[in-house]
Amino acid sequence: MNSEIAQRRSRVAAGLPEHQLDALLVSSPANVRYVTGFTGSSGVALVLGDHAILFTDPRYTIQAAQEVSCRVAICKGPILPTVAAEVARLGIRRLGFERASISYDGYLTLREKLPGRTALEPVARWLEEQRMVKSPAEIELIRRSVATNSRAFEQAARHARAGMRERDLAAEIDHQMRRMGAEQPSFETIVAAGERSALPHAHPTGAVFRPREVVLVDMGTFQDGYASDMTRMLFLGTPDARLKRMYRAVLEAQLAAIDAVRPGVTTAHVDRRARMVLKGYGLDRAFVHSTGHGLGLEIHELPRIGKKDKTRLAAGMTITIEPGVYLEGTGGIRIEDTVAVTDRGCEVLTPTSKELRTV
Amino acid sequence: MNSEIAQRRSRVAAGLPEHQLDALLVSSPANVRYVTGFTGSSGVALVLGDHAILFTDPRYTIQAAQEVSCRVAICKGPILPTVAAEVARLGIRRLGFERASISYDGYLTLREKLPGRTALEPVARWLEEQRMVKSPAEIELIRRSVATNSRAFEQAARHARAGMRERDLAAEIDHQMRRMGAEQPSFETIVAAGERSALPHAHPTGAVFRPREVVLVDMGTFQDGYASDMTRMLFLGTPDARLKRMYRAVLEAQLAAIDAVRPGVTTAHVDRRARMVLKGYGLDRAFVHSTGHGLGLEIHELPRIGKKDKTRLAAGMTITIEPGVYLEGTGGIRIEDTVAVTDRGCEVLTPTSKELRTV
Repeated sequence: MNSEIAQRRSRVAAGLPEHQLDALLVSSPANVRYVTGFTGSSGVALVLGDHAILFTDPRYTIQAAQEVSCRVAICKGPILPTVAAEVARLGIRRLGFERASISYDGYLTLREKLPGRTALEPVARWLEEQRMVKSPAEIELIRRSVATNSRAFEQAARHARAGMRERDLAAEIDHQMRRMGAEQPSFETIVAAGERSALPHAHPTGAVFRPREVVLVDMGTFQDGYASDMTRMLFLGTPDARLKRMYRAVLEAQLAAIDAVRPGVTTAHVDRRARMVLKGYGLDRAFVHSTGHGLGLEIHELPRIGKKDKTRLAAGMTITIEPGVYLEGTGGIRIEDTVAVTDRGCEVLTPTSKELRTV
Repeated sequence: MNSEIAQRRSRVAAGLPEHQLDALLVSSPANVRYVTGFTGSSGVALVLGDHAILFTDPRYTIQAAQEVSCRVAICKGPILPTVAAEVARLGIRRLGFERASISYDGYLTLREKLPGRTALEPVARWLEEQRMVKSPAEIELIRRSVATNSRAFEQAARHARAGMRERDLAAEIDHQMRRMGAEQPSFETIVAAGERSALPHAHPTGAVFRPREVVLVDMGTFQDGYASDMTRMLFLGTPDARLKRMYRAVLEAQLAAIDAVRPGVTTAHVDRRARMVLKGYGLDRAFVHSTGHGLGLEIHELPRIGKKDKTRLAAGMTITIEPGVYLEGTGGIRIEDTVAVTDRGCEVLTPTSKELRTV
């Protein structure tokens, strides 16, 4: 991976002139990892035309030396003043910074500590856009993360039955993924039973699964830094007709959206395909979120697959497709896969069946 | 908890005049939870003199209604423009915002969407300082989180033996805490064996424990939203003399620091007590971080217990005391408890023994 990371930095460096910058200060943790390989929780990277520097604190001295191939600066005090001093020493005149990830406070610190002659230029979505298209090596890592996630689901789903608590199934899922080599869940695992499945982002509780209820499971893993994301439904016995119809509608919407995924189409088009199917069922107003999102070093990345998002898909992008409908008092249904855009269409990376599953 | 949350808002509202503000926009997720009870990942709160509004997105409509006692506004698009429109509608002239938690981008959005007559005033550490002193109910929740954490450690430590992998012990720890009612670890559980224990923030790897190695375990849980934090060492058989001496030094430093914890002393004083003991062992330069930190709704809160931190401790604060020494090529030793400041001194909440423990 080290040569790939060096290539990413070269690409950023090559883009500096067109942004009219001498250097870019990278502060989003995922972007810092992307351009340096550093996995610590505290660090920023300065990318210049011909080299790069990772700034971190003394807790990470040894780890940074192991992980990072560019120069490392260990800061004894707060990091940004040290960066500002180095920027001044290097005579950098035009410094870009990531406007979405630096805090207002961090901005003021830089402004105060930098020489007056250094221009501070906000940069939006630069590395985020570069990260949208994954390399074959990255897609392989995502594929492995997806495979672990699906295996963990299968192992855990065997335990699902009436009488089990939401949080116990969530704990079992997380345990299985860790046993299989994941670092951690890529977000708090969602296990929501019965009416609670109508909360798209429910925290698992001590609520007990009851017979004939539906259980929504939304789970992802981080493995070797890369995210996966999947949602499946478990039916505790035969579902009632209403839930069954919702399931059919969502599955049809999900398949229609996947069918639309290919290079060149806009993400809004993919989103619309899911929405149109749900409209046919009179369920479009119950679909309260977007159809999906990119994922990679973060669980939510560009592109967004929503109503108003005009990004054109390209081969190498990895996205989720996850329509859902939520009816307060009844419950929610969501079906989600991780999908890679290929040269001609897409590959659904998630191997888990989407047949209506009763346990 | 609802009446306590309303009281917190009243205290913020009461502080508005002295900050020369009409309203405060709360954007740090922990602060949003503190003043509203909302646990979702997307939301900001506006606290005015006589009421408050939580702004969130449609995914959280049902959850917000369940969790929050103040008014809830569901935003169909991006949240901050909706906030700006409401601020304009309410005729707010002086709006405070949290400078450390709002992004530079968020600041620009507010500035652009707010009427020109609305002054935007950066606020630092307001709610963070209010949160430093916990209520009896909060301390009780932290005590429960600490108890769960220690029980999970005991259950998992039974499995520790030569031949086990770091990541399997970490997975076992996380599984046990979840089984016992924790939502999730309060940070990525650290299990670092042998020389890797010299990395203060090591990620658990596939490395196998070898006989006579030392294993550093740093773990915490979030339970009912409140954090705990503990570090213990496991020795796989009799430790060599060097590690044993390091252990004695760190334990002595930790006890000296705890002994110094009482209302009125500065956090720098507590830090110095640990450092002086380590200096007596010639190990002060191997102590590369601060002695501790506050914890509560976040794993790292104010106050910092470091060399230069002048906060005076007060009854009701909950902090960690965690000196450590790290020698590259040999290993690291850290010992950490969660401690509550009482009227007369402090109470070590962590029940786990600090005797040198061989497994």
